[in-house]
Amino acid sequence: MSISTQSFIARLGLSVPIVQAPMAGYQASPLAIAAARAGALGSLPGASLSPQALRDEVAAMRADGQRPVNVNFFSHAQPASDPMREQAWREALRPYFDELGIDPAGIASGAGRLPFGEEAVAVVEELRPQVVSFHFGLPGDELLQRVRRTGAQIWSSATTVEEARWLEARGVDAVIAQGVEAGGHRGMFLSEDITTQVGTLALVRQVVNTVRVPVIAAGGIADSAGVAAALRLGAVAVQVGTAFMLCPEVTLSAPHRAALTSPAVEHTALTNLFTGRPARGIFNRLMRDLGPMSPLPPAFPGAVNALAPLRAAAEKMGRGDFSPLWVGQHPPIASGVSATQIVRELSQQLS
Amino acid sequence: MSISTQSFIARLGLSVPIVQAPMAGYQASPLAIAAARAGALGSLPGASLSPQALRDEVAAMRADGQRPVNVNFFSHAQPASDPMREQAWREALRPYFDELGIDPAGIASGAGRLPFGEEAVAVVEELRPQVVSFHFGLPGDELLQRVRRTGAQIWSSATTVEEARWLEARGVDAVIAQGVEAGGHRGMFLSEDITTQVGTLALVRQVVNTVRVPVIAAGGIADSAGVAAALRLGAVAVQVGTAFMLCPEVTLSAPHRAALTSPAVEHTALTNLFTGRPARGIFNRLMRDLGPMSPLPPAFPGAVNALAPLRAAAEKMGRGDFSPLWVGQHPPIASGVSATQIVRELSQQLS
Repeated sequence: MSISTQSFIARLGLSVPIVQAPMAGYQASPLAIAAARAGALGSLPGASLSPQALRDEVAAMRADGQRPVNVNFFSHAQPASDPMREQAWREALRPYFDELGIDPAGIASGAGRLPFGEEAVAVVEELRPQVVSFHFGLPGDELLQRVRRTGAQIWSSATTVEEARWLEARGVDAVIAQGVEAGGHRGMFLSEDITTQVGTLALVRQVVNTVRVPVIAAGGIADSAGVAAALRLGAVAVQVGTAFMLCPEVTLSAPHRAALTSPAVEHTALTNLFTGRPARGIFNRLMRDLGPMSPLPPAFPGAVNALAPLRAAAEKMGRGDFSPLWVGQHPPIASGVSATQIVRELSQQLS
Repeated sequence: MSISTQSFIARLGLSVPIVQAPMAGYQASPLAIAAARAGALGSLPGASLSPQALRDEVAAMRADGQRPVNVNFFSHAQPASDPMREQAWREALRPYFDELGIDPAGIASGAGRLPFGEEAVAVVEELRPQVVSFHFGLPGDELLQRVRRTGAQIWSSATTVEEARWLEARGVDAVIAQGVEAGGHRGMFLSEDITTQVGTLALVRQVVNTVRVPVIAAGGIADSAGVAAALRLGAVAVQVGTAFMLCPEVTLSAPHRAALTSPAVEHTALTNLFTGRPARGIFNRLMRDLGPMSPLPPAFPGAVNALAPLRAAAEKMGRGDFSPLWVGQHPPIASGVSATQIVRELSQQLS
């Protein structure tokens, strides 16, 4: 490991330069604990855990050992309500409501995932995680200052060289260079145009050459050779999500799990259908029918509500037709193996 | 260098595991010779050089030294003429003809780039290059057999794991894993859907794990760290194009050169507008106006003719509005430096 990698992990109290990617909706402390037991940084998804759940999960992590914690938040701007667009989205989905016998009048109209705000920053001040990472840019200056005053390292994802420069100028402690291979939501925040998105190999190298802060490589890294290659590009560490998705510590729907272990996993695409923001998942029926990138879904996270009953009904029948089947472009290489073991495999070529 | 890399380059008589990517329209023997002088494999683009030009250029390479030669061909199927679609394409371009004062009646109606056929295979039999590489799959069995009987190694590009399997089953000697970062034409041939395209890091690793033949990594590799990273992924060699584009041995239009050294190079996209097939180039006016991927252009290479006068007129005014500004997602790191020097830089971290 390079000197910069050694000093980066020493400062955080890690033994390997591996970050378990926070995966909203799929995990809580069990995955973070299992990864941390092998010396990686365990992460919790603040986007899908309530403040009380975060308290409980951080407590569970700390009860297992004195290890650092990364709590991740979505820092999108909450869109104004747009009833016309929501109506149009329901209209587009009407054939599916009919097919599955669902009454769209019963659709929830809640705000969905809330951006990082007062409640979240108060939890950060209380729990004092060693790392607070953001997706979709950064929260406003005042919130960011409050996070900084807790002593936490602040990280965020860049999907272009321009976003990396922007984050560095705002004082982040590390940039996660999220290549286009990555599963789940793109962290993109300066553009909505997916043609701006760059492959991991080209992105990491350019971000390393552009910013002075440490760069964490993400996207398509699924085994020890991938980790070694990313470090050769000058990343100080890697963030890995997909490789853990078939671990017993991850909660997946049955159709999602089945898709991940079938040939379907070979074809993924960026799609905004499931939430309103581009994210990578297995190419499924909804993507085939409407096109993976569509002007129809309301702004993030507005697309979620209308899909929820379709998703639930289809999943009950064992089908992932309306589910976001998030996964990166390199599928998991092991199934049923603890995240502790996965981290050990990922670390094999480190010297 | 691994044992497999060493044996791969030894068999070809190279001293470094670097292939100068054939770049149709931009280069002939000067680039190949300059790259070969530093021990890389020099390549010639059979797609843009006539049989007689190929004879002359191979002779020039061989006059410079006893080194291997790679001749590359496009192995697309020639589309049937489609006058309706060609007419629709001209209609779509009409505002530009009006703007530039061009009479579309004067548009050439030639077939454009011919697929690998009788004339090309005869040149291969005559010149006996050490490597014959194909883009867009492989030619038919009979032609392929004739190439094989010359003793040439046969390579082709795979943009998905599925294409790699397909090529291996047909007996190629090496697979070029062309990640989505690569500049110019995607080699894709089993699908026309660009969502199937995979980032270099994820693609190379999976292709290495899938096929038994040697894998050459391509896409976004622009410096010595990129080369080292690709070899860590298990590639035996790398193919590099973009890094050479500002070499004095490459012929570029003035607007293309200007774009490559401007901030515009940071935003590229896959587009089918310029030829009918997806290829990566700088996001320019035509792509902004029509959308980079469009149903309008006739099948490859049919889109080229109608654009030719627009391209020529705009380039005369110093504008690349209608030109394919091919480049990969990692721009060249040096300008005005010989390809010999670039190969030396790329080789710096090989041990």
